Amino acid sequence: MSDSSRILNLAVIPGDGIGPEVVAQGLKVLGAVLPPDVKLETTEYDFGAQRYHATGETLTDADVEALKRHDAILLGAIGDPSVPSGVLERGFLLKLRFLFDHHVNLRPSKLLPGVATPLKGQPEIDFIVVREGTEGPYTGNGGSIRTGTPHEVATEVSVNTAFGVERVVRDAFARAQARPRKKLTLVHKNNVLAYAGHLWTNVFNKVAKEFPEVTTDYIHVDAATIYLVTDPGRFDVIVTDNLFGDIITDLAAAVSGGIGVAASGNINPGREFPSMFEPVHGSAPDIAGQGKADPTATVLSVALLLRHLGYEPEAARIEAAVSADLAERGQSVRTTEQIGDALAVRVAG
Amino acid sequence: MSDSSRILNLAVIPGDGIGPEVVAQGLKVLGAVLPPDVKLETTEYDFGAQRYHATGETLTDADVEALKRHDAILLGAIGDPSVPSGVLERGFLLKLRFLFDHHVNLRPSKLLPGVATPLKGQPEIDFIVVREGTEGPYTGNGGSIRTGTPHEVATEVSVNTAFGVERVVRDAFARAQARPRKKLTLVHKNNVLAYAGHLWTNVFNKVAKEFPEVTTDYIHVDAATIYLVTDPGRFDVIVTDNLFGDIITDLAAAVSGGIGVAASGNINPGREFPSMFEPVHGSAPDIAGQGKADPTATVLSVALLLRHLGYEPEAARIEAAVSADLAERGQSVRTTEQIGDALAVRVAG
Ligand SMILES: CC(C)[C@H](C(=O)O)[C@@H](O)C(=O)O
Ligand SMILES: CC(C)[C@H](C(=O)O)[C@@H](O)C(=O)O
Repeated sequence: MSDSSRILNLAVIPGDGIGPEVVAQGLKVLGAVLPPDVKLETTEYDFGAQRYHATGETLTDADVEALKRHDAILLGAIGDPSVPSGVLERGFLLKLRFLFDHHVNLRPSKLLPGVATPLKGQPEIDFIVVREGTEGPYTGNGGSIRTGTPHEVATEVSVNTAFGVERVVRDAFARAQARPRKKLTLVHKNNVLAYAGHLWTNVFNKVAKEFPEVTTDYIHVDAATIYLVTDPGRFDVIVTDNLFGDIITDLAAAVSGGIGVAASGNINPGREFPSMFEPVHGSAPDIAGQGKADPTATVLSVALLLRHLGYEPEAARIEAAVSADLAERGQSVRTTEQIGDALAVRVAG
Repeated sequence: MSDSSRILNLAVIPGDGIGPEVVAQGLKVLGAVLPPDVKLETTEYDFGAQRYHATGETLTDADVEALKRHDAILLGAIGDPSVPSGVLERGFLLKLRFLFDHHVNLRPSKLLPGVATPLKGQPEIDFIVVREGTEGPYTGNGGSIRTGTPHEVATEVSVNTAFGVERVVRDAFARAQARPRKKLTLVHKNNVLAYAGHLWTNVFNKVAKEFPEVTTDYIHVDAATIYLVTDPGRFDVIVTDNLFGDIITDLAAAVSGGIGVAASGNINPGREFPSMFEPVHGSAPDIAGQGKADPTATVLSVALLLRHLGYEPEAARIEAAVSADLAERGQSVRTTEQIGDALAVRVAG
């Protein structure tokens, strides 16, 4: 980053469950990887279940204004069984994705040497999913009538716009263009969801003309889940809708080492608003506070954060450190902190 | 079946690609398994790509009336790359599911001995998915405005009714109750799709009270894909929405031996209309006419058909024959016909 001030002003949201433990290690590695002339400023925010129980708030207007002043946001995990399903998800996570226009939901899947996969024969897996983050069935459009009666009708409306689809498709093409294999697969269900499917397919084919070097491919979402377990090596970059992306990235994480190592970025590519980076795993309340959580996914999310802000060498250093650590980890059982320490040593070294 | 006439009056739709080859073997096994006093009457229908190209028709009103007169329908596969995506799917397959009210889309997953799975360590897999077949995002509700312009908005509406959800949830509870483990898992995404999610969850919890012996469970669809590859043994019966069911049953087929052995039934449990049984695989035009297609999925679909019509011993005999055949199959490469012959011999024996 050639910013003259060289200040990295980060919002930190430890959140619930194992969130605080893994975020602490993410920050440790971040501190170790940054060059001495970069000043790291962090502000911690208390969003999550505790604050919700104490105040009834998930994310206020004042919170949003405060968050806007940061370069980026690092999130641990939000969610607790004591809060009804959906309250924190919609009141915090999705709210931020929409308010900060995080339309590129970036989720890399790479099976690193030494990492266990549920698949036979240790296949080569190295692809990224560009999931749309602000449209589709996630818009909250819908409703119900005669609710709770035998005559209830409940609807959910998937909203898709040419504007919203084109920007994320274009982002995915650019990412595919920058990778050695230069291949982009559209995942949708255009044989059934005809209106949204045609929009996605038409926009995809239109933008493809601007990227003649990129090989393109289309797969229905149901078939994509088959390929993810039988031939994941066929994927390089995938672009898909918000809901399909939600589903296939959990599966992708599972086959490429599990959610213990899966990172994600909720990205506003134009930087009009801060982007948010978080491990794909949840708050895992059952193992919280025991030092058992693997902070690797959070550390890899820090790498995505650095890359987004222009700190490419530092991002690459973190990724190399994680690769080396996983390759040597073997069967050893280490605490959250020990893994964080080991990674901090590697990135500094 | 204690029907005095003992006639089984079947509509047969060979369809496209490998459809005719696998259906021929399905009928051969059906003929071999039926007791001598049951008269099998079959009427073949020419639905599919060829007829569409010749006449522009997918399924006429007269076709529907003709199909209604049968006890059940056996389908090979419909679909060809020469027909635009969605035309045959919506114009034939989905149209029949809706017209004949096939609200229980039944898809068993069982990893049989001797069958290869992409998962490590040959896990125990034996569950069934009860997928809703007539609602959700499959209703064709939706539309687009400013189509083809940079200002296009395309919507898809998922329609869910208490009536539609309750009948399929009740069917799934009854199936769970009849199985040794008696466990039913609801798969949805109720933290995001709040309106449909609440309807499904409330109905599920209400019906659960009538089945106190059935253990219940809820999993988000994204997490369900993780469990399907890391712990598929946790599932006994799954009930889910039309689209989620479409996605997870392809994955379930992949982990439990592939679509070569995955059967399905589009069932109208009250038999107001004929139910339709078909292999989960498609028409596979690349291997059509070469005798390479595995007819096992079609033969297992015939078993589901027989069970639906009350021929339980015959259904069980087919399933036992398939198990035995797969266990002994080893690496041997047999033609479509050889596999059909072997199964016909086994069920007759
Ligand atoms: C928690 C939930 C709202 C969220 C989503 O559905 O997007 C999660 O599953 C994810 O993938 O980030
Ligand atoms: C062909 C298609 C319309 C169909 C579906 O989406 O239901 C298929 O994928 C299936 O699962 O039977």
